[in-house]
Formats: sequence, C-alpha cells, structure tokens
Amino acid sequence: MSEYTPPIDDISFLLSEVFDIDSLGASLPGYAEVNAEFAVSVLEEAGRFFAETIQPLNLPGDEEGSRLVNGAVQTPKGFAEAYRAFAEAGWSGLSGDPAYGGQGLPRVLQILSDEMLSASNLSFGLFPGLTRGATEAIGHHASDELKATYLPKMISGEWTGAMALTEAGAGTDLGLLKTQAEPQADGSYKITGSKIFISSGDHDFGGNIIHLVLARLPDAPKGVKGISLFLAPKFLLNADGSLGERNSFSVGSLEKKMGIHAQPTCVMNYDGATGWLVGQPNKGLSAMFTMMNAERLFVGIQGLGIADAAYQKAARYAKERLQGRSVDGKAPLVPIIEHADVRKMLLTVRSFVEAARGLAVWTALEMDKAQQLDDAAARAVADGNVALMTPVVKAAFTDLGFEGAVLAQQVFGGHGYIREWGLEQFVRDARIAQIYEGTNGVQAQDLVGRKLSIDDGALPKHFFGLVEADLAAAPADVADIVKPVREAFEVLKQATERLAARAAQNPEEPGAAATDYLRLFALVSLGWIWVRIATAAAAKADGSALHRHKLAVGRFFVARVLPQVYGLDRALEAGAAPITALETEAF
Amino acid sequence: MSEYTPPIDDISFLLSEVFDIDSLGASLPGYAEVNAEFAVSVLEEAGRFFAETIQPLNLPGDEEGSRLVNGAVQTPKGFAEAYRAFAEAGWSGLSGDPAYGGQGLPRVLQILSDEMLSASNLSFGLFPGLTRGATEAIGHHASDELKATYLPKMISGEWTGAMALTEAGAGTDLGLLKTQAEPQADGSYKITGSKIFISSGDHDFGGNIIHLVLARLPDAPKGVKGISLFLAPKFLLNADGSLGERNSFSVGSLEKKMGIHAQPTCVMNYDGATGWLVGQPNKGLSAMFTMMNAERLFVGIQGLGIADAAYQKAARYAKERLQGRSVDGKAPLVPIIEHADVRKMLLTVRSFVEAARGLAVWTALEMDKAQQLDDAAARAVADGNVALMTPVVKAAFTDLGFEGAVLAQQVFGGHGYIREWGLEQFVRDARIAQIYEGTNGVQAQDLVGRKLSIDDGALPKHFFGLVEADLAAAPADVADIVKPVREAFEVLKQATERLAARAAQNPEEPGAAATDYLRLFALVSLGWIWVRIATAAAAKADGSALHRHKLAVGRFFVARVLPQVYGLDRALEAGAAPITALETEAF
Repeated sequence: MSEYTPPIDDISFLLSEVFDIDSLGASLPGYAEVNAEFAVSVLEEAGRFFAETIQPLNLPGDEEGSRLVNGAVQTPKGFAEAYRAFAEAGWSGLSGDPAYGGQGLPRVLQILSDEMLSASNLSFGLFPGLTRGATEAIGHHASDELKATYLPKMISGEWTGAMALTEAGAGTDLGLLKTQAEPQADGSYKITGSKIFISSGDHDFGGNIIHLVLARLPDAPKGVKGISLFLAPKFLLNADGSLGERNSFSVGSLEKKMGIHAQPTCVMNYDGATGWLVGQPNKGLSAMFTMMNAERLFVGIQGLGIADAAYQKAARYAKERLQGRSVDGKAPLVPIIEHADVRKMLLTVRSFVEAARGLAVWTALEMDKAQQLDDAAARAVADGNVALMTPVVKAAFTDLGFEGAVLAQQVFGGHGYIREWGLEQFVRDARIAQIYEGTNGVQAQDLVGRKLSIDDGALPKHFFGLVEADLAAAPADVADIVKPVREAFEVLKQATERLAARAAQNPEEPGAAATDYLRLFALVSLGWIWVRIATAAAAKADGSALHRHKLAVGRFFVARVLPQVYGLDRALEAGAAPITALETEAF
Repeated sequence: MSEYTPPIDDISFLLSEVFDIDSLGASLPGYAEVNAEFAVSVLEEAGRFFAETIQPLNLPGDEEGSRLVNGAVQTPKGFAEAYRAFAEAGWSGLSGDPAYGGQGLPRVLQILSDEMLSASNLSFGLFPGLTRGATEAIGHHASDELKATYLPKMISGEWTGAMALTEAGAGTDLGLLKTQAEPQADGSYKITGSKIFISSGDHDFGGNIIHLVLARLPDAPKGVKGISLFLAPKFLLNADGSLGERNSFSVGSLEKKMGIHAQPTCVMNYDGATGWLVGQPNKGLSAMFTMMNAERLFVGIQGLGIADAAYQKAARYAKERLQGRSVDGKAPLVPIIEHADVRKMLLTVRSFVEAARGLAVWTALEMDKAQQLDDAAARAVADGNVALMTPVVKAAFTDLGFEGAVLAQQVFGGHGYIREWGLEQFVRDARIAQIYEGTNGVQAQDLVGRKLSIDDGALPKHFFGLVEADLAAAPADVADIVKPVREAFEVLKQATERLAARAAQNPEEPGAAATDYLRLFALVSLGWIWVRIATAAAAKADGSALHRHKLAVGRFFVARVLPQVYGLDRALEAGAAPITALETEAF
C-alpha cells in the first residue's frame, strides 16, 4: 500500500466550490469541456498511478541513488520501467500542445498533477518536469522544423528534456557564462563548454535526451545580451527520424548532493556538440524566461507536495505512537497527537498545505486565463497576477514546505532522524526547491525590485483589490477568520507603501526588505485563500465533515500562523540601515 | 589549513569585559586561580587543537561514516588516532574531578571548549561529551569502589562512556522501558534487553567502553519509579584492573541517519550482561537527571557551534563569490556580500551566535556558582537560574542553530546543496540536536509546565529582576539597543503572566503555548545579552574594531531579529482553542 493519499477530496472542493471552474471553463475558449467532474476524474487517476507506481520507488531510490557507470547514468532500480509506464499512461502530455499530440489540458490540472507527483517522488518528478519546460521553450521559440522533429516524442514522453544553463562561475548571474557556439556551414552550431547542476542530463530510460543549452555566438555582446539558446540532442537523428550517432557531449560527473539522490544531477561537457539555434541570436535568455513562470510555479508546488506527504506520515504516526499521559492526568498513556504541541506542529503544516493548494490553483487559473482569454486587456490583467504571484509561490511554498517537512520530522522524535522512516529524506529533498530555479533570495528581489514597481505599482494594486472584494463578500459567520486576515492585510498594504516610499530614497531598501516582505506577502495571500475557503465552507459546515474541518484548520492558521506578519512588519520598519552598517571586511 | 577559526577574541571579550570572570573567580572557592587570561590561554590551545586536528576529519568522516564490520564498529579513518591525541593532550578531563585525575576547571571553560569541538566536528565531539556525562553520573551516584575503578580512566580519556536509555517503545516516556536486571549472588546484576539510539555504543579507539544502562529490577514498580541505573563495561576487569573477558552485550546494528554519519549510533543488545547498580534501586531516572542540565547545555552549545562554523564558511564565500551588479549599478560584478539579502542572512546567523555564546557563558557561570559558592541561599538562586535557562538554551540554540546552518547554506546557492562544500553536512548534523536529549518540544514543556511554576513563579521573577537591572544600568549611548529590548521584555513579562493565569483555567494552555513561549523567552534573553554586550562595548567603541562591530551586530539583532516576539505574542494570545478544536480523527 502506498504511504501517500492523493488529496482528491480537497482538490474537488477547491475546483468545484472555491474556484467554480465549471463556470470558468465555459468562458475559456478551448477549455469549454473542462469541468470540475472531468478534472477530478483525471486527477484521481493520476494520483492513483503516482501513489501506486511512483511513490514506492521514493525511499529505495534515495538509498540507491543514480550512479555514473562507464560514463552513463544508471538510475535506481525500477525508475526506467516506471518512467515508461508513466509515459504510456499519457501523463507526460497532460498540458502538452494538441498540435503535437498533447492533451491540451489547462495549467491548473497540470499543477495539481505536479503536486501529487512531487509528493510521491521528487527525484522522479523532475524528469517529466524538465521535459515539459524544454518542450514549452521549443514550442514558443523554435523553428517549425525543430518543433515537428522534436515535440511529438517529447510530449509523448518517449524522449526527455534537460536545461543546461548554469556554469561553475555563472549561476544567478547567467551573464557570466562562457560556453561557445560556432556556426557551421550547414546552419548548425558546434557547442563547447561545461555546465553544472544539470538535472536529468542523462538517464537509462531509453530514447533521446534533448538538451537546451545556453551559449555565446562568436560575435556576441558581453553579458546577458549575448546569450543564445541551442537545442542539442544526445543522439543525432537519421534522415528517417530514428536515433543516429551519439552527439559529442558527455556526463563529466554526478553531483553528490544533500538529497534528490535518485535524480542524476550532471556536470555536462559539450565538446563541439552539434546544436541548432532556438529563437533569435542573443535572445536566448528571454526565450528561457518565457516559461520561467510555469517552471517557478512547478518548483513552488514541489514544496507543497513534500509538505503534504510529510504531514500525512506524521499525522498517522502521531495517532499511533503512544508516549506520555493525557493533560488531565487521567489516561496514563496516550497517542502523542493528544499533546498540544504535536497537534500544533501538524496543524502548522496542514494549514499551510491546504491554503497553498488553493493559491496554486488560483495562480494556475490565472495562467490559463492569460493564455486563453479572448480579450487582450483581460489577458494582461491575468498575466499581471501571474507575474506578481510567481516569486511568492516559488519562494514561500518552498520555504514553508521545507519548514513543514522539518516539523513533520520533529513529530517522529528520534525516528525522524532515521532513514527508514522517510522523514529525513523529505527534509533533504525539500531543501533543493528553495535553491534551484532562482534561489528564494532571487525570487524576493524579483518581487520587490521588479513586480511591485511595474506600471507604478499596478500589480499589487490590482491584487489588493481582489483581496478587498473577497474580504467584503465573506459571510458574517466566518468573521473570526476574516477579521485577522483583514488586519494582516492592512499591515501588508502599509508595508508596501512604506517600501515604495523608501525605495525612492535609498536603493538598498528593496534588497534589505526583500525576503521579509515576500514572507509577509505570502502569509497574507494564504490568509486571503483561507477567507475564500471559509466562504465556500461556511454554507455547508453544518452537514459535512470536510467543511467543518476546513473552518477549524483555517481558524488555526489565522490565529497561530498568520500573526508572524506583526514580527515581519516591525523588522521591515527598521529598514536597511541595520543591515548595511557593518563594513564588509568585518564579516 | 583549518576552515574553522576558534572565536578566541570573542571569548576573551566575553570573559574579561562582559562577565568579568576575574572578580568572579576570586569569589568561587576552588576557582580562585581561574582568571580570564588563564582561561583564554587554555581555550586558545583547545581551539587550535580542535581546528587543526579534529576539524579536518569532519567532511571525510561524514563521507565514510562509521560502519559495523563483523559486529564491531569501525570509525572513519583518522578518528581513533585523533581521539587518542585528544585524550593525551588532556582535553578529556578539563572539568573532571581532580580527585580522579581531572583538571577541575569550571563549567564555563568546559562549555566554551565544547562549542569549539562541536563546531569542528559534531560526530567526534559526542565521544568525549557522552564520556563526561557518564563520568558525572558515576561521580554523583556510584559507590566509592566503582568510582575508584572507573573514573580515572574515563577522565583521562583512556576509556569512553555511553548512555543506554532509549528503547524502541520508550523514548520521551522512559517509564515504558522493559530492559530487565536480575540480581546475582555476588552483588552484580545480569542485564537483558535492547536499546536504540545509543551514541558511542561501540568504537575502535581501544580501551574500555562504560555503558550506563537503565533497567528494571524484578520487583520494581511500574513506570518511572521502577527504573534503576547500572554500569556495564564492554570488557569486564581482571583483578589487577586490566581488561578481561568481553561482557555479554553487542551491537545489533548501526542506525542509518540523516547526519552525524561518523558517530556510531548503535542498537545495543544486552544478553545477560554483567552490571553493577549505580545509586539506589528504582532511583535510576533521578540519577540520570542529575547531569541533565549539563548535558542539555552541551547539546544547546552544539547548535551554536555548528552555526558559527557555517557562518564562517558562508561569510568567506560571500566575500569571494562574484555575481550580480552593485545596487547603484556602477559596478558590473560584485562579491555577493554586497547584496543586502546575503548580508542579512549572514547577520542573522552572527547576531544569534554572538549573543548565544554570551548566554551560554552566563548559564555555565551560574552552574559553577550553584556548585561552588559557600552560601547555600546563593547556590539555590544560581541553581534556579540554571533550571530556568537550561530548556531555553537547549531548544532555542538548536532551533536557531539549525536555522542558521540553513541560512549559511542558502548563501552558497546551488553549491550549498553539494556535499564537498560542507554546508549541507552542517544542516544534517545540526538537525539531530533539536531532537536528542529531550526533543525541543519536551524542553518547551519543561519550561512552561515545570520551571515557570516552581515556587509560584520564583524562577522567572528572579531572572526578570536581573534583566531589569541590566536594562536600567545600560548607558544612554546604547539606547538604540536598550529600547527595543525593553519593549520586547515587557511583552515577555505580560505573556508570562497571561500564561500563568490561563494555565490555572485550562490545563491545555501550557502545552499549546510551549514552543512559541520558549522562543519568545529565548529571543528576549538573547536581547538581554546584547544589552550586556553593548554596555561593555560602548565604553571602548571609539577605538576598537571589535567593540564597534559588536554594536553594529547588536543593532541588527534588535532591529531585524528580535521583532519576531510581536508575532509570537499575538499567536500566544490566541491560546489553546485553535489547536484543540479539530478532532483527532480529522488529522
């Protein structure tokens, strides 16, 4: 039996009752047939497959790890078979372009599927996750010929993708990268350079591996304006499309990492590898950034997925593990869930997970609207919402997801530190999501340095309007949830204004505020989702256990988690001076 | 060269200027010769030895790990030699009883030595740490014959110690333990049972290993009142004191853990092992608890030590790693320490480390007073301070230490996730200190459920008086540090009163408040230490870099870290109801 139960009831509640996707689907051209019933049936099947087939490989995959044998990656036992089954069941192409064989389903289904896959097995989930990212970059920017050649087999899952961006001296600052691309007479390029941290750079699943590589053309300007994007397959193709000779790139080594041991994170050496330009010369970075929002939402959801998997294990353990007396002293031995501090740890994780899932659904729906709505102005509004919320979801979900995994581990006491229980793996695996795809510090810079100031603050202004409307619309019988969220929301609005005023005076202020401000923003956003959930649940809370539980968990969040905003606000009020005062040499 | 610089300047500043141990030593019988100059010279030598000899084994020790080969533990390469050198240099017996060959130096030196050893190599430091704990339990409770037989070689480091408490079904709740002890005609006992999580249960350093084992006598009452303590050596002794036949206990397996891989954490099987009673029958638990304060202070200091080691690496890296532009856009490429968020992460760790070191020194000095002062009333006051601060130090230092290691890892970006940089090991190793020696949740229960209510709140009342006096005595030119601490202190006092009032009404309140209250208490205590440091530094801040830096780091702490108390206070205000509302089955 799987140790992970896909959150289908909660998904159903969110899609039907909180976000009413039935009425939404009707307004989105191309998604007319996507109603909640259909979406839930698809996700139920996905969840069952991930829980039964992918999750059981998680713990042994960590133990065995991926290895480099004679220059080729060997993934842990069962991964190759599971990947083929995953592709054959059609989960690779869920949101893929129907023109190339994808199912064309909305982002909201993709992201909920991603949550369950990440909860089941983070290392495994990176294979299709990176393939989808590469597919979307090719779909948006490559020539029709490249698209026709590569997309069908990537969307079907027969081939996988990898993104080769980072170099030893160029991580956050990709402008420093040195890999070179020499044009050839036949229109192809010879790519030479070394890349690090390349997830899914090689594997033993069969098929081809399509690398998207950032490199410089000979005459390229310095910095980020001289970076181009290239497609380089592991196997060059014969004229009939079959796999031909090996391209000249290879795995230098596998990174030895804290976690995601089953995932082969490669050092890749490109030794005059054959590649083709994707998009315009010197526009490679913007081509990569096209799918950045989707990738960052995907990483955020990894934090959420692991936190839920960890919560489920910890809640089960807390109901079974007998230690200590009841608080009234009457029962000499009780399950540890009867101890308030254990219950508080569990509620902390759960109240994050349930609201975060709601916020992920909202964000994904905005992405769908930004892509599908007829009206350009409405598309732009949705796009602004996505731009604003993307760094928040990426950073806060992975920070709170990591903290949640740590709390779930703590519930296990000493056993939490022992591998066989699986909790310590959740902590190690969750940690990477705070780092990759732009560290959480970079996300916070993106929020305060860019997103807040676009069009003189149009993005937060619009978002705050949405929150305001939902607070006003909430029924009186959930006032105990609405009131603390309203108070926290006022704090956020004031902090936003204060930051804008200070940023105009001192360029250090946004950077000094960034991570604390992002967390404040995220907590209020999760509080807002709790208001929406409570509004939907209030109507039915008399009869249904799920609706009653929603209100109880929401009340916990606003009473015991949300108050963090008051500490963050005071810290932000102090501004940049305490951070910049100590001279560099004194560190 | 070692990657760790022992914080000798800071130690010297604390001992001489903040805590003035010269005048203190004179008032402590037996410690008259212990002045700051002597203490610093001892610690300088200890730090040098740990940094040069023990620290270089940390990363390779993690990689290799301890292994079980033919039933015997094989520690990583270099550990056995380093341990012998450690013992020969005299570091085992620093605070050991001079009657049995120890140097009899105060606890404050021991704890600072422990910090540097933990910073150098946590796995290694557990060997002498557990030996000292066992030594102290024997010294307090065993017969003169056992003491004469075992203490000299344990204090010299020739033999090591282990504490065998936990069983699979008995962790926090030791009353559930099942190991049996059968009295023998010769006054010894045959011990039978299985223990888990036994640090240093076996090794290959040579000599003997002295296990202290909790077990039940045949007629023992149920629960914690029927537990006795036994001494069982790995090798029974011949009449001349030399090592004789193997005692009948063995290592069942080694736990596979998240971290401290070099430390052999054993499952131990006692199969009619020969042991001798230590202390009174059925009083084993109180014998173990005698040295609990010292052990918990030791574990707290592990969190601090790792945080400092991680800070040092991260600060060095941040000054070297070039990524991104300066905030004014003038410099196209700067070390990442020029980015405010990186600087904030570093300052968060450092402002914890420096204050925590001060609080550890204060607590250790109170332990010394509680043991050495002539006046019984003064001893009792010091003992009360230790009782109050012990759970705070254990839990908050390990929580903040872990968080600090995570922040330091974050400074490294992707490299932080890679083993060779050593940061991910710090995170994995630091995690255990939040769990063992009583989980941090148990510490919080100890604080709110016991320590706050002893003698109608005498402990916090006395401690708050000390804080009040220091706030009043601080000079006006550090008002920017004193004022925020005073405000936070008022919050703590009110939260303490509110909790006492509520606890009288509802027995769930202390448990529901415990962890948040402990963190609030700890943050204010660290703020108090910053006031003491600032008071000492203010006088000399014109001339000395160290004194100026102290004030800058203290200002950061009170402005950007201490405000957490406002969030904690609001969460505590909400009380137990949001935690207890959700029924157990709904988790």
